[in-house]
Amino acid sequence: MANYNQEMYGLGSKRSVIRELFEFGRRKREREGEDAVFDFSLGNPSVPPPGGVPLALSSLATTPGIHGYTSAQGDAAVRRQVAESLVQRFGAPVGPDDLYMTCGAAASLCICLRALRCPGDEFIVFAPYFPEYRVFIEAAGGKVVTVPFTEPDFQIDFDAFGASLSEKTKAVIINSPNNPSGVIFTEATLKRLATLLEERSRTYGHPVYLISDEPYRELYYTPAPPPFVMNFYRNTLLCYSWSKSLSLPGERIGYIAVHPQAEDAKGVYAAICGAGRALGYVCAPSLFQRVAALNADTAPEIEAYRRNRDLLYGALTKIGYECAPPDGAFYLFVKSLEPSAQAFSDRAKEYGLLIVPGDDFAAPGYVRLAYCVDYDMIRRSLPAFERLYADYR
Amino acid sequence: MANYNQEMYGLGSKRSVIRELFEFGRRKREREGEDAVFDFSLGNPSVPPPGGVPLALSSLATTPGIHGYTSAQGDAAVRRQVAESLVQRFGAPVGPDDLYMTCGAAASLCICLRALRCPGDEFIVFAPYFPEYRVFIEAAGGKVVTVPFTEPDFQIDFDAFGASLSEKTKAVIINSPNNPSGVIFTEATLKRLATLLEERSRTYGHPVYLISDEPYRELYYTPAPPPFVMNFYRNTLLCYSWSKSLSLPGERIGYIAVHPQAEDAKGVYAAICGAGRALGYVCAPSLFQRVAALNADTAPEIEAYRRNRDLLYGALTKIGYECAPPDGAFYLFVKSLEPSAQAFSDRAKEYGLLIVPGDDFAAPGYVRLAYCVDYDMIRRSLPAFERLYADYR
Repeated sequence: MANYNQEMYGLGSKRSVIRELFEFGRRKREREGEDAVFDFSLGNPSVPPPGGVPLALSSLATTPGIHGYTSAQGDAAVRRQVAESLVQRFGAPVGPDDLYMTCGAAASLCICLRALRCPGDEFIVFAPYFPEYRVFIEAAGGKVVTVPFTEPDFQIDFDAFGASLSEKTKAVIINSPNNPSGVIFTEATLKRLATLLEERSRTYGHPVYLISDEPYRELYYTPAPPPFVMNFYRNTLLCYSWSKSLSLPGERIGYIAVHPQAEDAKGVYAAICGAGRALGYVCAPSLFQRVAALNADTAPEIEAYRRNRDLLYGALTKIGYECAPPDGAFYLFVKSLEPSAQAFSDRAKEYGLLIVPGDDFAAPGYVRLAYCVDYDMIRRSLPAFERLYADYR
Repeated sequence: MANYNQEMYGLGSKRSVIRELFEFGRRKREREGEDAVFDFSLGNPSVPPPGGVPLALSSLATTPGIHGYTSAQGDAAVRRQVAESLVQRFGAPVGPDDLYMTCGAAASLCICLRALRCPGDEFIVFAPYFPEYRVFIEAAGGKVVTVPFTEPDFQIDFDAFGASLSEKTKAVIINSPNNPSGVIFTEATLKRLATLLEERSRTYGHPVYLISDEPYRELYYTPAPPPFVMNFYRNTLLCYSWSKSLSLPGERIGYIAVHPQAEDAKGVYAAICGAGRALGYVCAPSLFQRVAALNADTAPEIEAYRRNRDLLYGALTKIGYECAPPDGAFYLFVKSLEPSAQAFSDRAKEYGLLIVPGDDFAAPGYVRLAYCVDYDMIRRSLPAFERLYADYR
């Protein structure tokens, strides 16, 4: 008998690439000073929460009972406020009873996957994708099926997608605006996606659910907001987190919304309640449920990100780097200057540039640059990017 | 292919007995007024958080970066403060790197179980036990083995316990002070428990871990605090939550402490980190990690509970009810006046008394009364308890 679970040990003991970069940066800073490192490795919001957050915190902190249990699906008034905001802003078809408050996006995904997963089920992800998708799907007992990405627009390769779908497909996960690519799925992409999923649902005789992971929904630099996924396809489970929009990543607050016209919507919602229970999520943090609800309509302060993006994207493309369309989130996905993105990332370290190789995102040949950083650091980093580029000529 | 997981659906759609009582109470109040119902069904702290909590909240709320991600195992300074408090108050053998901050006790348990569980593993629980133990163990893929309880002291029946242990036993869960019985395991019980587990660990050639679930650790009415479990047995994983001690049940904040001399302690700790990741716990809520750390030495305000206990226990035993030794937590575990506790609870409802049958706690024949309620409600309820008793004579 082993003393502990080997898979869990593996997940807990393997240091991530990002963590390695972090440690490298720490050592280099100690040796050569703060200015020797340009850290683009972390997706941690660099702008403080909007003013509505401290305001809500101070007005709520002394409310009697505010720290008590809420019901497992979340405080009823909170769910009402969040649903109203979704209806008003996006014409979403949801009401309070379609919402389930969670401890953030990771919890939302884990709960949905656990709620849906039956023996033999497959879950489709599109490269590039957040590496934890694989961890969450496998932990729920599902099988990961990856659809390769398309260059240069990073929309969906529908031939490859069509070939990946099968009777075993329980759900498809999308993430737009995307981490790591910053790309937003167009309306045309979503329409075609919906049509294909409807067709296949009919063919297979069971729904193929769409899990839409939307923590970056409000972080976009296009004139119009990203199309609201749930309005394209009824079998949608929306996973949201306020981590990025309200700069609250450590507070773990988000929700799941089940489209009320989804097939077996009531059953799926009950299974979500059960999965939350089985995974130990008693309720979402009670104070921040209310803080989030009071800020349901608060727009994120993205001007700093936009400024960073314009500077970095403008400078890099001028140097000659190629980049996925950087329409949302706070990442640039830049083509590696050599076939191995790991080797490219290693070379970049010599110039103090901490950039994450795309391999873990199932996108070898690319690197991710998080520009949720100090503007001045970007400015100072540009000569290093130039020298790195020159190095490859 | 089913559209969702049937087990999760089962967990999410079954209304709990406590929830049924709650709904019954709501209807009765509407019909007959507030004073017609005496609700002893919920374990929700009735005293507000100690003054240190709002103080910490207001001093921290505007600290830059306070809402950012912490490391997965928890903020380093927080773990240092919590470890120091454990060393100082209990002579605990733990340091900051033995602690893993969690989203409350349920998360602590689910993470430990998932970290330890290997194929075929059994987990032993002592009746009466918190019903979610079964849900958590089974969700982690383990098998529940129940040791029946002993009357009248509710300590451990070591013959039954010895017969329940086997080579398949991965861990034993204890909860002292206990929900639902209010009983505290004595030093003699813990010594004998430790001796037996050491002996069996040798016999089986692998450690039998002890998971000590301690959310009620600071809620005791005895002259001395409950014995500190980890000091009796090195293969201990302590699961803690501030839900009860700081009246913060909705905020989901707690920790796991791994005894550094436990067998394979480093491996178990790494598996805990992996299990946290696999279950979607990115980090414990960041603001409340700091609030809890600042209140690591804060004693809970238990005088109100003591007053409630003395009134209720005194009056019920005077009437003739029999009760488990009510030394800690905020529950009385009272012997049903008929063989079926469910029937007894139903009869009590006729008098407006909402009390939870012990069946779900694996203790049929008993009912749980939560006295974390208004003192005046207890006072007003006493004639109803008298009439209920008279009903059975």
